Amino acid sequence: MKLYRVNMSDLSFVAEEVPKEWKVLGGRGLTSAIIAKEVEPTCHPLGSRNKLVFAPGLLAGTMAANSGRLSVGSKSPLTGGIKESNAGGTAAQRLAKLGVKALIVEGIPEGDKWYCLHVHKDGVEIKEETELLGKGNYEVLHTLTSRYGENTGVMTIGQAGEYKMVAANISIKDPKGHIRSAGRGGLGAVMGSKRIKFITLDDNDGTGINILDKEKFKNAAQIFNKGLLSHPVSGNALPKYGTDVLVNILNEAGGLPTKNFRLGQFDGAEKICGETMYDTIMSRKGDSTHGCHVGCVIRCSQTYNDKDGRYLTSGFEYETIWGFGAGCLVDDLDIIAHVDNICDDIGIDTIETAGTMMVAMEAGVLPWGDGHGILKLLKDEIKEGTPLGRILGNGADSTGRAYGVTRIPTVKHQTMTAYDPRSVKGIGVTYATNPMGADHTSGYTIASNILKVGGYVDPLSKDGQIELSRNMQISTAAIDSAGLCIFTAFAILDYEPVSHALVDMINAQYGTNWSVDDWFELGKTVLKTERTFNKAAGFSKKDDRLPEFFSEPIPPHNAIWDFTGEELDQVYTF
Amino acid sequence: MKLYRVNMSDLSFVAEEVPKEWKVLGGRGLTSAIIAKEVEPTCHPLGSRNKLVFAPGLLAGTMAANSGRLSVGSKSPLTGGIKESNAGGTAAQRLAKLGVKALIVEGIPEGDKWYCLHVHKDGVEIKEETELLGKGNYEVLHTLTSRYGENTGVMTIGQAGEYKMVAANISIKDPKGHIRSAGRGGLGAVMGSKRIKFITLDDNDGTGINILDKEKFKNAAQIFNKGLLSHPVSGNALPKYGTDVLVNILNEAGGLPTKNFRLGQFDGAEKICGETMYDTIMSRKGDSTHGCHVGCVIRCSQTYNDKDGRYLTSGFEYETIWGFGAGCLVDDLDIIAHVDNICDDIGIDTIETAGTMMVAMEAGVLPWGDGHGILKLLKDEIKEGTPLGRILGNGADSTGRAYGVTRIPTVKHQTMTAYDPRSVKGIGVTYATNPMGADHTSGYTIASNILKVGGYVDPLSKDGQIELSRNMQISTAAIDSAGLCIFTAFAILDYEPVSHALVDMINAQYGTNWSVDDWFELGKTVLKTERTFNKAAGFSKKDDRLPEFFSEPIPPHNAIWDFTGEELDQVYTF
Repeated sequence: MKLYRVNMSDLSFVAEEVPKEWKVLGGRGLTSAIIAKEVEPTCHPLGSRNKLVFAPGLLAGTMAANSGRLSVGSKSPLTGGIKESNAGGTAAQRLAKLGVKALIVEGIPEGDKWYCLHVHKDGVEIKEETELLGKGNYEVLHTLTSRYGENTGVMTIGQAGEYKMVAANISIKDPKGHIRSAGRGGLGAVMGSKRIKFITLDDNDGTGINILDKEKFKNAAQIFNKGLLSHPVSGNALPKYGTDVLVNILNEAGGLPTKNFRLGQFDGAEKICGETMYDTIMSRKGDSTHGCHVGCVIRCSQTYNDKDGRYLTSGFEYETIWGFGAGCLVDDLDIIAHVDNICDDIGIDTIETAGTMMVAMEAGVLPWGDGHGILKLLKDEIKEGTPLGRILGNGADSTGRAYGVTRIPTVKHQTMTAYDPRSVKGIGVTYATNPMGADHTSGYTIASNILKVGGYVDPLSKDGQIELSRNMQISTAAIDSAGLCIFTAFAILDYEPVSHALVDMINAQYGTNWSVDDWFELGKTVLKTERTFNKAAGFSKKDDRLPEFFSEPIPPHNAIWDFTGEELDQVYTF
Repeated sequence: MKLYRVNMSDLSFVAEEVPKEWKVLGGRGLTSAIIAKEVEPTCHPLGSRNKLVFAPGLLAGTMAANSGRLSVGSKSPLTGGIKESNAGGTAAQRLAKLGVKALIVEGIPEGDKWYCLHVHKDGVEIKEETELLGKGNYEVLHTLTSRYGENTGVMTIGQAGEYKMVAANISIKDPKGHIRSAGRGGLGAVMGSKRIKFITLDDNDGTGINILDKEKFKNAAQIFNKGLLSHPVSGNALPKYGTDVLVNILNEAGGLPTKNFRLGQFDGAEKICGETMYDTIMSRKGDSTHGCHVGCVIRCSQTYNDKDGRYLTSGFEYETIWGFGAGCLVDDLDIIAHVDNICDDIGIDTIETAGTMMVAMEAGVLPWGDGHGILKLLKDEIKEGTPLGRILGNGADSTGRAYGVTRIPTVKHQTMTAYDPRSVKGIGVTYATNPMGADHTSGYTIASNILKVGGYVDPLSKDGQIELSRNMQISTAAIDSAGLCIFTAFAILDYEPVSHALVDMINAQYGTNWSVDDWFELGKTVLKTERTFNKAAGFSKKDDRLPEFFSEPIPPHNAIWDFTGEELDQVYTF
């Protein structure tokens, strides 16, 4: 495999050998290693010294179930720290099939022209782009399908990325031609800063995936795949209701953050829950279950149609529905679906933007519960890049600063998500301490706190949360490095043969002799690399804390955030 | 003397004894000691746990020349660190005459009412205020003169403070009824967060100033005063031309930052220099020299009239003229005077706002050199609190973030000033390392780098700059604690009897037995207190660095910023 390196400063491309130490790295492990090695931690994230790295996971392109996540890494313009954001879609598998271990984009072009990259078996072409500037992601996908045909991968930024808004994401075309987002941390702004509107991927005649022991791999992959399908969460709840199955579960647990984290339960939960979504999809002849990438067996995605049966959105996630729903007191699933669609089109992270809208409601920019107001702000302000759009498009912290609001649910400037850290304390530890900023996916303690996967840790008690979060953060860093969907963790945690199968697949493909412990060590190394980068960028222990308003009790349990700094600092003692 | 403590949460007031350890502290030394002791470093600066402290200096209200500066301290919403900002006007002397060592304002009121404070000999009255909400500072001063008479001190915020913009300052009425600003660090936003529109000060029947050895004090004060008058800078250049005398001096030195720090010389310097200002003032029957507070013998202020001889502005400083002038390529002194007047009225820091306009010009919000555009943005956007006004009113960093601009001349989020750090390297060391953020007044190496006061250190060489900046930062912290104008430093540095007279005054007033070294130790203690606070707030060495674009050479000397981090870290080794 090769590293594809593009320098936008002189519009050059080079294919490089993969250094030995990176040969058995992929996904997040590789993007973080490259950023840590090649990017000065104190550089401006939107300046010429930052880099943007796309890396498929270790198992990408293989028959391993759910191994098609693409990691995108950079110094984040949102958090100021290292960032990996991953997404489904077809890009990871296409890169893997092209033999591209990572695509590294560096520099910033002279002048003010915009460009696109076309990645294929012989390298990367850098071409000027004018036609699609200012266009939304759906139009980009549509036009590129005309230009290159259906069977071309696309990674693109919408208007938000062009404006370098730090809530901008990178959108990745999925098998149905819809959008998957590397959502968090403003990586779309980094792509915009390099003036790349989109990247197309043609994997025809690629070198393919080299697996050293194909038989061993096949056997392990079968165990792995079966494990995912036999687990009640990944084999049953998620395929049927999608991630939105969590609305009722979190509402019942009193951990559904409502009205910008004032309450743990939402009166309108029933109207926006997974069960309601399922019924709505079925009645409108949508598609209740499909995967975000080829080879996904969990298939938690869906196609959500409007009242007239026309496509409205897909990849309609619990965190999006929570944020614009309970978070903003909006109880209309159609409006939230419309919001999701527009966010995808503009290319802006739904979680960050939901936090933004909560803060905007605090500021009186729009009333609580005003879903139509959210739509209007997205269409008339953020998409248009008006001054108000610039405030909002730069996230919850930006909006709070602009309006003097102090109730901002962020850590390291990134909005936290759909699980209240007081009533689900493990996730609070993850929000506080993970190098990515407040991010549920980077140490999803909900598994044990709420879903009772991998054991049970009482969400309302402090006991065991530090260890839980630590272990989840470590295992997640390893899972993200394999390019696996985070939901594979349920079976990995609960079924020992599945975790062995995972390691067996890696050993079979790369000729390594890893144990499950070695796998865990990979996760530790990734986290340490990331923490070291952040420290060198200026982060201190004080950045590993929740905002002060979490000292307020939250109904119904009247739980408070009661971890000391010293306790939180115990997470990174490995 | 007493501490006056107002709690806005329950609208209560209490007068407290001064703790023993604070008895021989004043000004910045006292505000920083109080903030460090009483404010949680990680609290939100606009939240209820932050405090706002007003403290006259150690020599306030005495016959010591230039001792009427007021220190205002808080955790800064601009920098996120500890902040002291000082200004002239009549407030410090009135507080001193009332026997108020410090006025401490804490808490935030319930509900949404606004208040004013009235400080007098029996304490502080907290009253609801409605009439002056939304009004500019000039109207506030005018109305309060009607309400209370000429002889009442006023500290007020304009619209920017009400909006909690982090470039908002606190305006202090001066002897002529004009405005002096505690400009830097967004302390007006803190006052706005506590919903205090203004504070009036009635020093009738105050306890007065207690001086233990009046004769000794008088003798020392005479030496001190004479020293200031006999120094060529404070006795001649500043009284005649004001601080704007520096335009030609810095332009000649190649250190006048032009077009957002791209060049070190400005073609339009002649049109905005102190000599031109002097001629203009004289031809329009303005006032070329007066003091910002009673007892000032340097009198670097002026009244600048418009073409028709009507008052336009006063306290028209070099840094303001530099920022909106050379910084933004505006070469019209009348326009800049108009900008200064509006900034005073809105209550917004001219230096931060000049940095904002430079960044806005980078972003294309308005063209380079468009002075009328700056006026329009101030009047139609910032004053009105529009979304664009919210972006701009929150300073240069906010504006850069909103528009994805990377060329932002800030340290610790605060705009640097009128001396390029590459061609005047000592000031760069101060910008980088001072706990206040980029701030020329906190370690004014210009004295030795450019004016050859206190010796000469070649501004273009790295040699000696660390020591120079360190010593200047230490002595400034002590001078700020005495409530002295920074320009007393010229005579203090050059004339040994003046520095002894200064210490003699303190000893005579307080019965201490300080040497000049003890005085220097006070400065060290203040800085250490501030650094400790900042560290606990999350600052690291990485915050003591200049933005990366200063690696570009600047004409005419093609100087670059060439200090390593390790070198900068040597400043705080005392």
